[in-house]
Amino acid sequence: MKSTINYIQEKAAQVNQALHQVIEEMTGVPPLLKESMAYSLLAGGKRIRPVLVMATVESLGGDVKRAMPFACAIEMIHTYSLIHDDLPSMDNDDYRRGKLTNHRKFGEDIAILAGDALMTEAFGLMATGAKEAGISSEVALQMIAEGVKATGARGMVAGQIYDLQAENQAVSLEHLKRIHRLKTGKLIAYSVRTGAYIMNASPRVMETLTQFAYGLGLAFQIQDDILDVIGDQQKLGKKTGSDQEKNKATYPALLGLEGAKRELADCIEQTKRRIANVPEIQSYRLLEIADYLLSRDQ
Amino acid sequence: MKSTINYIQEKAAQVNQALHQVIEEMTGVPPLLKESMAYSLLAGGKRIRPVLVMATVESLGGDVKRAMPFACAIEMIHTYSLIHDDLPSMDNDDYRRGKLTNHRKFGEDIAILAGDALMTEAFGLMATGAKEAGISSEVALQMIAEGVKATGARGMVAGQIYDLQAENQAVSLEHLKRIHRLKTGKLIAYSVRTGAYIMNASPRVMETLTQFAYGLGLAFQIQDDILDVIGDQQKLGKKTGSDQEKNKATYPALLGLEGAKRELADCIEQTKRRIANVPEIQSYRLLEIADYLLSRDQ
Repeated sequence: MKSTINYIQEKAAQVNQALHQVIEEMTGVPPLLKESMAYSLLAGGKRIRPVLVMATVESLGGDVKRAMPFACAIEMIHTYSLIHDDLPSMDNDDYRRGKLTNHRKFGEDIAILAGDALMTEAFGLMATGAKEAGISSEVALQMIAEGVKATGARGMVAGQIYDLQAENQAVSLEHLKRIHRLKTGKLIAYSVRTGAYIMNASPRVMETLTQFAYGLGLAFQIQDDILDVIGDQQKLGKKTGSDQEKNKATYPALLGLEGAKRELADCIEQTKRRIANVPEIQSYRLLEIADYLLSRDQ
Repeated sequence: MKSTINYIQEKAAQVNQALHQVIEEMTGVPPLLKESMAYSLLAGGKRIRPVLVMATVESLGGDVKRAMPFACAIEMIHTYSLIHDDLPSMDNDDYRRGKLTNHRKFGEDIAILAGDALMTEAFGLMATGAKEAGISSEVALQMIAEGVKATGARGMVAGQIYDLQAENQAVSLEHLKRIHRLKTGKLIAYSVRTGAYIMNASPRVMETLTQFAYGLGLAFQIQDDILDVIGDQQKLGKKTGSDQEKNKATYPALLGLEGAKRELADCIEQTKRRIANVPEIQSYRLLEIADYLLSRDQ
């Protein structure tokens, strides 16, 4: 497990450096806005999504440097979604990544605008970074359109709507899976697909990696739900027990804690099997990331 | 003046139809989200920005149909900015375009997400609509990047931050102009530039139209400030007198009502002169729009 963590940490450090640079190079941004954007974007976090872009590029024999603009853009979109989800009118969370949430630090108005700006600038980074990533303009446009599908009204935002509507409601396991697929699955799948796009993967490899990513996203979410029950608040950097407090539908709530753990183990095994024996994919880093997600305590 | 209004109304009707179609064609969107997006997007409004895209395309001898995807995208971005600006933590407005503001109708959480979705989908429309508009992928990427500059951390969002910071502050005329240039000027300039991009305008024509657009944006804002003092609440579809209530820096506040009116007339005259005698630009529709903005009461 050590080598995986080292790999993830090493890649995450590269992402952090690149994100610092993205913020630094933004000239003409009001200081308060920049501070608020940087506060959440540079707050650490696991950087799973950008690391997946990089690991996918490597698994197809490419250089991670090519992954960087899109990897950063995806992390910016993820961060915007966290800032907005934490707002008082949504999840009303006070802590995130071990720090006060953006609105608790800067006020709601600035937090909303920092999220807006991060999202907008993410698409700008995709548009301007395509050349650096060695992506043709045609493919870059296709990737932007797909990023919109993954995160907009038919993706992440849709998931957040369904999630809000599910509070205090009886929710089936099937509906819960649908929410997660939209809210987190699509962006994780997009991360892996971005790596595959960069490497000009065949449709078959693209599809295989996509199914792997959806499995990974689901496992990630089950583990998130489990950690909200048994996790260490200190390590997680956010309050635990909040799902139950809000009467949210979760895997432990629907399957019991042990049932959720079994579901997670099954999900990880099935997910790993999808890419284990595909000749075009040097899968070991991606498999390690899957194992790490299973064993993580934060 | 009648013909201008007819022209603007005719083009606005085409925009409305296209926006309806954009919303209709969005499959897989949660019904409540779609309703909230449609509520604000299809609430009417002057459609000045998309009409400017179309009029610019026509002024350069093109077919307005080519303008439509980008024209709709720009109106979606404008609408998202209105939804978020109206929120309680920002301008806290109850009425917009003669209807309850989005958050007053759907709640803050849904309003924030509807704004997020409109913005995201706007960039998707640019990415997928480029081909329909006959724009090369290279140019489409450049236009997306420029749209991000106009609306993100260095554009519209920056303007909103400065605007919030200016409340209850003594603000110079110069600073007020800077706020407006960011908050409304850049998106209006982007609208005109979008038309010029679609028509593959020369750098000189592009620059001339850009300066025209910035002038127009400034005039539009001065008139907005004036209408907040002397306008008819019924016609405007929103509360008047709110700038003074919030102690906002405005042209009438800084120059007096008569001074603001003179500034507006000067600005319109200078702005019209920029494009009046440029052989490549069939300027009469754009000039009529400028006159309409001067005479409008809503």
